[in-house]
Amino acid sequence: MKVSGQHYRGIWRTAEGIVRVVDQTRLPFEFATRDLDSVDAAAEAIRSMVVRGAPLIGATAAYGMALATRSGAADSDLDAAARLLRATRPTAVDLLWALEQMRRALGRVPESQRSALAFREADAISNGYVEHCRAIGGHGLDIIRTLAQSRRRINILTHCNAGWLACVDWGTALSPIYWAHDAGIDVHVWVDETRPRNQGASLTAFELGAHGVAHTVIADNLGGHLMQRGEVDLVLVGSDRVTAAGDVCNKVGTYLKALAAHDNGIPFYAAQPRSTIDWSLSGPADVPIERRSPEELTHVTGRTRHGTIDTVQVVPDGSAALNLGFDVTPARLVTGLITERGVCAANAAALRALVGDRPAANE
Amino acid sequence: MKVSGQHYRGIWRTAEGIVRVVDQTRLPFEFATRDLDSVDAAAEAIRSMVVRGAPLIGATAAYGMALATRSGAADSDLDAAARLLRATRPTAVDLLWALEQMRRALGRVPESQRSALAFREADAISNGYVEHCRAIGGHGLDIIRTLAQSRRRINILTHCNAGWLACVDWGTALSPIYWAHDAGIDVHVWVDETRPRNQGASLTAFELGAHGVAHTVIADNLGGHLMQRGEVDLVLVGSDRVTAAGDVCNKVGTYLKALAAHDNGIPFYAAQPRSTIDWSLSGPADVPIERRSPEELTHVTGRTRHGTIDTVQVVPDGSAALNLGFDVTPARLVTGLITERGVCAANAAALRALVGDRPAANE
Repeated sequence: MKVSGQHYRGIWRTAEGIVRVVDQTRLPFEFATRDLDSVDAAAEAIRSMVVRGAPLIGATAAYGMALATRSGAADSDLDAAARLLRATRPTAVDLLWALEQMRRALGRVPESQRSALAFREADAISNGYVEHCRAIGGHGLDIIRTLAQSRRRINILTHCNAGWLACVDWGTALSPIYWAHDAGIDVHVWVDETRPRNQGASLTAFELGAHGVAHTVIADNLGGHLMQRGEVDLVLVGSDRVTAAGDVCNKVGTYLKALAAHDNGIPFYAAQPRSTIDWSLSGPADVPIERRSPEELTHVTGRTRHGTIDTVQVVPDGSAALNLGFDVTPARLVTGLITERGVCAANAAALRALVGDRPAANE
Repeated sequence: MKVSGQHYRGIWRTAEGIVRVVDQTRLPFEFATRDLDSVDAAAEAIRSMVVRGAPLIGATAAYGMALATRSGAADSDLDAAARLLRATRPTAVDLLWALEQMRRALGRVPESQRSALAFREADAISNGYVEHCRAIGGHGLDIIRTLAQSRRRINILTHCNAGWLACVDWGTALSPIYWAHDAGIDVHVWVDETRPRNQGASLTAFELGAHGVAHTVIADNLGGHLMQRGEVDLVLVGSDRVTAAGDVCNKVGTYLKALAAHDNGIPFYAAQPRSTIDWSLSGPADVPIERRSPEELTHVTGRTRHGTIDTVQVVPDGSAALNLGFDVTPARLVTGLITERGVCAANAAALRALVGDRPAANE
């Protein structure tokens, strides 16, 4: 999508073949890019959340594998690169999927041809995400259009950032919103701040603002009350993993919004490409949950009145803090799942009927 | 309760007759007090949240009325003082109640006797809160004791600050926790950060730490997941208003925790003195909700690495922000209400049977 009138992707190859990403740790106050020149740089970008969001992590891992082939493309080199990348974010199934795709494609050709193929394959994975996100938006638009028949303005609540910054372009949860906005539907987005990393307040607010979509940032605590007051028409989130039963693993706090939506009769949809579905997981308890640094909670980074970026501590020194990154919303609270193939109910039969098995990288 | 071995109240009169409060805007990094020398200073302390929490606001308003009598104790002076104080925090029913008590008591005596009486009356209101909070703790302890029969450690989740800092002493939601801790029960508290003002991360964490109670600060988003994992045995919150039907108006986000507790079969209790019950409200929709400055959400204050207190902006310049202070948890999600008279179910009949009508200031 656009920033200051120019079209960007979350990751791309320049005309000179440089792998470049938007540095998301500097948003929303500075829009900067970073070049990735090695698999170590790609792994570090994932680990430090320069890039984040399930599809973008997948695409970055694919380019990371491609970058690795520049210094060695033997099977042992590829295995080492995959191991390094896999260890960066244990909850992200797209990461595993992209590494698998790359490993399989490269295994088919001799070592001398692998580097060139690797970049083409990474491009294909990246473009695949863009196409999937665009298709997700089209299917989600149908849901918004239906709601718009009985309301002047559609208020949509979203949690975390599942926009183009989280993907390569378009986004998952935000893709239908961009489609609706571009189609002239009056959409307004309630943006959950999304503690502890504030991806909603920083990234979602930034990209909606850059595209011109009306939005209001709220504390994560406020969504339930807004739903009680009838000020939310739809909850739309992305996901990091979906189980075979339709349970949705997403940024921590999503489950609370799903409970509130259910309590107030508000539709709750999760949008994600098919690759996010982990058929090996049969229920909420199977999903591994990432434990992250307590500092993300105890310290907050932002812009001082002097225009510099600084970090302040908000928890007293002697207090412990726990920071788990995700929760799992049980399928019973999910109205439907939006994928690039269409929308289905959140249950095993509907999910399998709609999206079958995992997609290939280049379909 | 104690800080650095010394016993403090949230508001008190010194031996010299000075009205002094703990300055809660400087916690958790600095423990400082502030003297209130006029009704204007008392009103400003409430408005700027130097003092906060329903009972402490009530006590401060009472002392504010007493301070007003020093410069004039005619009916018109009292009316003006009450008007000024009433306008500071529209959601706080204890504020209205305390002003009413003061006005009624002072109306009974001639103007010349009002100032002396006013301070005695404010002392009585303040001491009344302390006694009520102590009693709430005793009744809440029974609930914890029962849970402790089947568990080694009791994990209690609380939202915002309903401790001694919110009251004059003991606290409401935290009073049973202090009692349990002092009785040797192994309690551990999950402290919701409580965005946007972070009263949990700053005040609750501070006072639990100062008293030696085990606790862990978490993002407001995490509580639901912890409940799903069986790591919460009890949810205990305070309240700012309770309707006659048992609906609980408390810091925004409480409703989400009540939904999660209900979904996971975890008891959810609200603790408050009887004076918090507003018999004029019959249901959730009747409760007025305070709209506060968006800056509380868009800016975060904390301690820099240099040890200074600074404020950073966390939302991009062009984004709107909405900040509503409270939500209402419907009675159907509330296991019980803990008052100074005992514990009752959250419904009109049980509530009226237990606590009857409003208490007098000095009972």
